[in-house]
Amino acid sequence: MYRSKTCGELRLADKGKTVTLAGWVQKSRKLGGMTFIDLRDRYGITQLVIDGAADPQLVEIAESLGREFVIQATGEVLERQSKNPKIPTGEIEIKVQKINILNKSVTPPFTIEENSDGGEDLRAKYRYLDLRRPPLQRALALRHRLAQEIRTYLDGEGFMEIETPYLIKSTPEGARDFVVPSRMNPGQFYALPQSPQTFKQLLMVAGYDRYFQIVRCFRDEDLRADRQPEFTQIDCEMAFVEQEDVLKTFEGMMRAMFKNAVGVDIPNPLPRMSWYDAMDNYGSDKPDIRFGMKIHEITKQVQGVGFSVFDSAEYVGAINAEGCAEYTRKQLDELTEWVKRPQVGAKGLVYIKLNPDGSIKSSVDKFYTPEQLKAIADALEAKTGDLILVLCGPKRKTQTQLGVLRIEMGNRLGLRDPHVFAPLWIVDFPLLEWSEEDGRFYAMHHPFTAPKPEHEKWFYSDKKEDLERVCANAYDFVLNGSELGGGSIRIHNADMQKRMFEVLGIGPEEAEYKFGFIIHAFQYGAPPHGGLAFGFDRVCALFGGQETIRDYIAFPKNNQGRDVMIDSPSKIDQVQMDELFLASTVKE
Amino acid sequence: MYRSKTCGELRLADKGKTVTLAGWVQKSRKLGGMTFIDLRDRYGITQLVIDGAADPQLVEIAESLGREFVIQATGEVLERQSKNPKIPTGEIEIKVQKINILNKSVTPPFTIEENSDGGEDLRAKYRYLDLRRPPLQRALALRHRLAQEIRTYLDGEGFMEIETPYLIKSTPEGARDFVVPSRMNPGQFYALPQSPQTFKQLLMVAGYDRYFQIVRCFRDEDLRADRQPEFTQIDCEMAFVEQEDVLKTFEGMMRAMFKNAVGVDIPNPLPRMSWYDAMDNYGSDKPDIRFGMKIHEITKQVQGVGFSVFDSAEYVGAINAEGCAEYTRKQLDELTEWVKRPQVGAKGLVYIKLNPDGSIKSSVDKFYTPEQLKAIADALEAKTGDLILVLCGPKRKTQTQLGVLRIEMGNRLGLRDPHVFAPLWIVDFPLLEWSEEDGRFYAMHHPFTAPKPEHEKWFYSDKKEDLERVCANAYDFVLNGSELGGGSIRIHNADMQKRMFEVLGIGPEEAEYKFGFIIHAFQYGAPPHGGLAFGFDRVCALFGGQETIRDYIAFPKNNQGRDVMIDSPSKIDQVQMDELFLASTVKE
Repeated sequence: MYRSKTCGELRLADKGKTVTLAGWVQKSRKLGGMTFIDLRDRYGITQLVIDGAADPQLVEIAESLGREFVIQATGEVLERQSKNPKIPTGEIEIKVQKINILNKSVTPPFTIEENSDGGEDLRAKYRYLDLRRPPLQRALALRHRLAQEIRTYLDGEGFMEIETPYLIKSTPEGARDFVVPSRMNPGQFYALPQSPQTFKQLLMVAGYDRYFQIVRCFRDEDLRADRQPEFTQIDCEMAFVEQEDVLKTFEGMMRAMFKNAVGVDIPNPLPRMSWYDAMDNYGSDKPDIRFGMKIHEITKQVQGVGFSVFDSAEYVGAINAEGCAEYTRKQLDELTEWVKRPQVGAKGLVYIKLNPDGSIKSSVDKFYTPEQLKAIADALEAKTGDLILVLCGPKRKTQTQLGVLRIEMGNRLGLRDPHVFAPLWIVDFPLLEWSEEDGRFYAMHHPFTAPKPEHEKWFYSDKKEDLERVCANAYDFVLNGSELGGGSIRIHNADMQKRMFEVLGIGPEEAEYKFGFIIHAFQYGAPPHGGLAFGFDRVCALFGGQETIRDYIAFPKNNQGRDVMIDSPSKIDQVQMDELFLASTVKE
Repeated sequence: MYRSKTCGELRLADKGKTVTLAGWVQKSRKLGGMTFIDLRDRYGITQLVIDGAADPQLVEIAESLGREFVIQATGEVLERQSKNPKIPTGEIEIKVQKINILNKSVTPPFTIEENSDGGEDLRAKYRYLDLRRPPLQRALALRHRLAQEIRTYLDGEGFMEIETPYLIKSTPEGARDFVVPSRMNPGQFYALPQSPQTFKQLLMVAGYDRYFQIVRCFRDEDLRADRQPEFTQIDCEMAFVEQEDVLKTFEGMMRAMFKNAVGVDIPNPLPRMSWYDAMDNYGSDKPDIRFGMKIHEITKQVQGVGFSVFDSAEYVGAINAEGCAEYTRKQLDELTEWVKRPQVGAKGLVYIKLNPDGSIKSSVDKFYTPEQLKAIADALEAKTGDLILVLCGPKRKTQTQLGVLRIEMGNRLGLRDPHVFAPLWIVDFPLLEWSEEDGRFYAMHHPFTAPKPEHEKWFYSDKKEDLERVCANAYDFVLNGSELGGGSIRIHNADMQKRMFEVLGIGPEEAEYKFGFIIHAFQYGAPPHGGLAFGFDRVCALFGGQETIRDYIAFPKNNQGRDVMIDSPSKIDQVQMDELFLASTVKE
């Protein structure tokens, strides 16, 4: 061992001990004939002191050290004269007797501090240096801690972690697969899994009634910001359970993770909200409930007074931005432009200001009397100083727009503290979505999701309105406006599955082609089962109080799916192409 | 929840309780008007009893149940009349009041018992049914347990599990890579990792001084028996350590695994053996030390009496097969043919029998006096009744053949009990191997393995004989004749790395092309580091007392790299090929 102690563990109680540390030179400075070195490792920073009057050779070595040199230093633990209360080792320093340079370093391309001076691209290229920075060290330490907590909890609940294959088969459903040409089976390809969904259901058929896996998944999609072509999933499935069992088990897991990894107590039981309530009140199936500002429908209140925009709308809804009555004309114009951007897509924005002087000012003053406006304000429980923002249009679309506006106002008003955690379950999703365009139903989750037992009567009905009101035994785990995971109780009964295909307009041949393998397996005694999966990268980021996942992945890819550090993907040899029976069709 | 208890947990103390179980019908039989059903789940088997005099509807349901039907049964726990001491639930049975058929099953293609009547191919096709069998359930449960123990131990030792990418870059060294065409980067490919070697060394550069990962790796090799194209590795690396620290840490991990997963105490500290001793005494770098039968060199003793075969041999060695003097002529002929097979490759086999009557009989009687043969027997500490087997030829080759013969005799003599565990470290490997053919040295492990500090003087020497005696800071963990893992202390010093490339005849350009990326990273303050990796599939199999890994992988591939259950690999759509800018060159 090159060290007897780490750079993070010495305290005043260690005074007088002779220790050996090893680490990286964070910085070095001369002061009054002394050389001070901040020595850094994963555990912290310890100050080394080399007396100018000491052995000249030692002084010479100390003065030769550059940033990020790797050294080993032996010396005595002393009490510091001027203590540094900001770091746990701030009360001591090491009076160095010996320094051994383990490795030199060329000058790093950016500073390796809490906040670096390096740009994103440069830091990505030198990821191994960026990873030395404390925020990334904390991120990966949190990720490790969370993975441990998950495994400890699920192991304690009788779950078995079972590894499923990575070289599987391309499926005609879902997103695009990454494929892997097989040299031994010319012209054929494996696919990398988008999720272990099929395998975990097979494991239920095989009797492994509590399965989990922290597993890499792959999707060859055009990358949006903060999406990765490879991502990690906490994948779980249980047999002989109902929805209630799944929810209880996994909110227990989340409770343990919050408690043990970040020291936060979350409510027991967690709040649950139906999909309908989430849409109506928050305009989102992943509501951020850290703050109120709920959406109120005011359709009936505002219609029939001759304002044609509202009169012709299916739905009119509003939120109350508390304390925003002082928004200027300019700010309101900017906000109007903001909701009209294609990302939000509203046609316009109506406001009602409850001015501090008691007056009411609105962009639709000429259609509504102050009394009418006051009635709307009352419906939203708005008070003097508040600002009501109104959108209208088709119901779900407008609710969604109001939901986006609500989040924006929450951000502007500082209501979204990343270190406050407000998890909840969203339940009672519609089983089916009607597509006007295609004139048919689609499965909202996937065609193996079971209807709620109490809605089965509607599921077997031929009426569209009955089918529309069937809810699924499906659930999402939502935290602070992000969906962290979700799942469902699966259909295990062949007749019900047949009915589902019928409802979706999937004929027997198409069902056989697309899902034949799993349907066959289900003939051999499939137990009732259900499960869920969490996006582990996002879980880590949100637990760490961050919105973006990239810092929580040791070696992420950029938005073009490239690893700029190792310069991948790249061309391969013609020999390798030939062995794989492949030719490129790229025009050079 | 469909059950209040599992099929493995009820005992006599539960007598009188009303319980609900759920599981699969293992078998069902009528006896004296009663119907007996063995209900099975992952936890065990419980006997259900349906009284013929009970509710006729219940009797009818009970009699309709086929093998592998999934049912839910409620009833009272009774003490069994005729107890079954073979199963933990054998003292009780359930007097059933209600049965609910959760799912029917078509007749499975083979019996789902401890030993199945299904052939290997059939069971592979219906892997999800084979996985219901108790031996496979035990295998996967052991695998889960071992993974948990590894993580708990390493977490306790301050290791962080850090996930490294699966979509990486093809490298010109090592085995063949599986590649993944990139749609977003036309004409370019990712590679799947053969191991996270580069990334774990980068993590050391990044300061994560104790890293591990249980990680999937991929090698596109022609598959030998018991090799899989995807396999799981316990991958570990530490910084600021010497070989001793690595060995102590990981034998601690193995000790915890043996203790907690299979209840076995292994020696503390573990035995260590130099590579040279392993080759000389066991003819293998992965010696099975569960039994003796060591190899003895007898070159000097047997040369110079005119037996030209021995006189012209570089090396003559022997093993003593205790108690085998009664081997018949036929058995000895068969053994001679066995060692002459190409898999062993010996030219012939000489034997010396120490007959029960005190006489000595050998196949080389005409060259050696009984006294000379007795002297050889004494050298091998052979006694009356033993059989000495002698091979000759080039030294290492002959030792290896003797090693293979020793294992065979160990098997024949029942000396290799799979439930006896004899782990050890092999250390002091040669750093370099001289290739007569190419007239150059090759790295025995890889070109980043460090020489032992005390051998550095020879490493910088220009003499071939000096370089040949340099030992590496490399080590293998061996159990019962299998290498479970291995690793090395890496070179972290640029000058030493340069010297290594020089010794291997790798010029600066070639080094830059092959290893440029990691060499560059090492310029930024690489700490001293080292690590190792274990083959997790094999670890599981050996801990389970099995030689083959296939039962310890939930969904393995066959020897053609195919998953016959999902029928993968398979062809993909032309559309997908076009999107990837690929054309197949397979002649249809």
